[in-house]
Amino acid sequence: MLGHTMKTVAALSVAALIGGAADAADDPVRWKMQSWFPSKAPHAGTTGRDIQDKIKRVSGGNFQIRFFEPGALIPPSECFDAVKAGSVDACWSTPAYWYGRDPAFALFSAAPFGPDWPGLLAWFNYKGGKEIYEELYNKHGMHAIHCGGMIPEASGWFKQEITSVDDFQGMKIRFLGLGALVLDKLGASTQLLAGGDIFPALELGTIDATEFAAPSVDWNLGFYQIVENYYFPGWHQPATIYDIMINKDKWDALSDTQQAQLEMVCGDNVRQAIAEGEAQQPAALVRHKEKGVQIREWSPEILATLDETWREVAAELSARDEIFKQAYDSLTAWQEEYQTWTEVGYLDR
Amino acid sequence: MLGHTMKTVAALSVAALIGGAADAADDPVRWKMQSWFPSKAPHAGTTGRDIQDKIKRVSGGNFQIRFFEPGALIPPSECFDAVKAGSVDACWSTPAYWYGRDPAFALFSAAPFGPDWPGLLAWFNYKGGKEIYEELYNKHGMHAIHCGGMIPEASGWFKQEITSVDDFQGMKIRFLGLGALVLDKLGASTQLLAGGDIFPALELGTIDATEFAAPSVDWNLGFYQIVENYYFPGWHQPATIYDIMINKDKWDALSDTQQAQLEMVCGDNVRQAIAEGEAQQPAALVRHKEKGVQIREWSPEILATLDETWREVAAELSARDEIFKQAYDSLTAWQEEYQTWTEVGYLDR
Repeated sequence: MLGHTMKTVAALSVAALIGGAADAADDPVRWKMQSWFPSKAPHAGTTGRDIQDKIKRVSGGNFQIRFFEPGALIPPSECFDAVKAGSVDACWSTPAYWYGRDPAFALFSAAPFGPDWPGLLAWFNYKGGKEIYEELYNKHGMHAIHCGGMIPEASGWFKQEITSVDDFQGMKIRFLGLGALVLDKLGASTQLLAGGDIFPALELGTIDATEFAAPSVDWNLGFYQIVENYYFPGWHQPATIYDIMINKDKWDALSDTQQAQLEMVCGDNVRQAIAEGEAQQPAALVRHKEKGVQIREWSPEILATLDETWREVAAELSARDEIFKQAYDSLTAWQEEYQTWTEVGYLDR
Repeated sequence: MLGHTMKTVAALSVAALIGGAADAADDPVRWKMQSWFPSKAPHAGTTGRDIQDKIKRVSGGNFQIRFFEPGALIPPSECFDAVKAGSVDACWSTPAYWYGRDPAFALFSAAPFGPDWPGLLAWFNYKGGKEIYEELYNKHGMHAIHCGGMIPEASGWFKQEITSVDDFQGMKIRFLGLGALVLDKLGASTQLLAGGDIFPALELGTIDATEFAAPSVDWNLGFYQIVENYYFPGWHQPATIYDIMINKDKWDALSDTQQAQLEMVCGDNVRQAIAEGEAQQPAALVRHKEKGVQIREWSPEILATLDETWREVAAELSARDEIFKQAYDSLTAWQEEYQTWTEVGYLDR
């Protein structure tokens, strides 16, 4: 990248002259960021929109990333190709949406029965996750940064009470990511509907059940008005990574200062996402209960079968995709190692 | 703060002229930060030292905070007065060390039987913690920012196996923070020794037991060479806040951009501290076991008595200190609310 090197040299010379204010020499950057989630969706949308304010503030206005509502520039599902091609600078979403491009993306959204946040942050940052993740995006002409996330999701809304895994047979369920493959293997028929399409599908009986997100997010979609059984815990998404996908040439053209600014904003955004997500769930549960929703927990037997079935799905995906296998093996090895610590190091919840 | 306002006006005018590169107008800032922990201490020291690199990088060198080893400028225990007076710009430590100035500081280090990181981040950032914390530091002429932390600590090293709380009677124990008051109430005699003084005190029999930090940190102090019983979980510090304390006039004199730079660095540092801390514990446990250390867990009865005794200590402190009461009541209310979510929302550890 000759352009970048030249700019760095220029910046360093100016910095040497004026004693450190190197970013005075950085070219102003103005990016457009297409979001998959509306800015008003709790966590999923709000933490994305906050990137816009934080990057402007931390750079003194020199680096700006404008948040665009879903569809304002392009349909969110076209983000992958648009960022790759550079027609959009960046997108805000979660990697699972790119499962069709590379199955490993789904693992970098959320691994069923994976660790919750402290353990996931450890794996991603210090136990091999990030390197595989960056290589995966690089392969597709992008750089991506973990920039937020969702605390444990709910397992979802079921019209009928579920007393054994046999009940999944023949059910039509809206489900995202790797958890969908698990339910399919147990005889359900899953599909991925966009947020706004779920309520009418439930109402019309096109689907019998749906997961979406955590209680504070699900509330806005109003499922409590038509479905009574709300299942926990969300074995399929114990922690979900949201990220900013960036066209690689655009990323490489940033100065080191600008790259650091976005990295720090994203690090802070991860802290914020965990804090905000946890803070809002208890009250969201209460609101749901007040509407007559039954908060139900999976039996240990059902959870064990879901876990077992997930291991079969992971083995099949590993057999046919090398990057998936690499990421899954790395995460699984970490979880086994990590368990020796959580067993003794933590008070019971 | 007229000086600050004038500078902001100047910065805004320049920004208006040159189109957004407002930090070009910011005065360069050079701070000295005294650390309580040596830079080589895992987590406690390393994440403090990293602030130096991150703030330089994110500001393009315009804002620099130089990390000084403990004692390089002043004895760490003098940090409080030195930062308050402005003779040192900032300090890196944990609030519990300032318990003597205001008992509430100890709660902002770590609350016994408090939440672990996701729940603590929620309370601190969205459920009232931060406001009380900032008011507390403000009262003493400082601004502080949560800028790192320690994952759950170990309960500590005991020469004798502990089979009931009666065993604490008459024991001499090195212990930090509010947990020390709990053990005192159970008949122990606690004192706070600095890291380097603990090993000889254990060896000479001046103390019978000690806590220090998590296994990866304790390893460097070599306790495994002379004490066999290593107890878990660390009920006294399920999560510990490290912070940067800043002289208030120095903080107020920063531009909004510079304040944002330090805030983002600190947010990212919290993410890093959790990730790095969790990543290192499993291997540290293994190293200890290989040296013949017995990893022991408190019985449910002992934990229940410690919890009960802590509630008595908290009630006493609340009766004599208004800010402590405010912080304790706020945290306790959050924990009760939060439990309704963790009970259903999480897979078992």
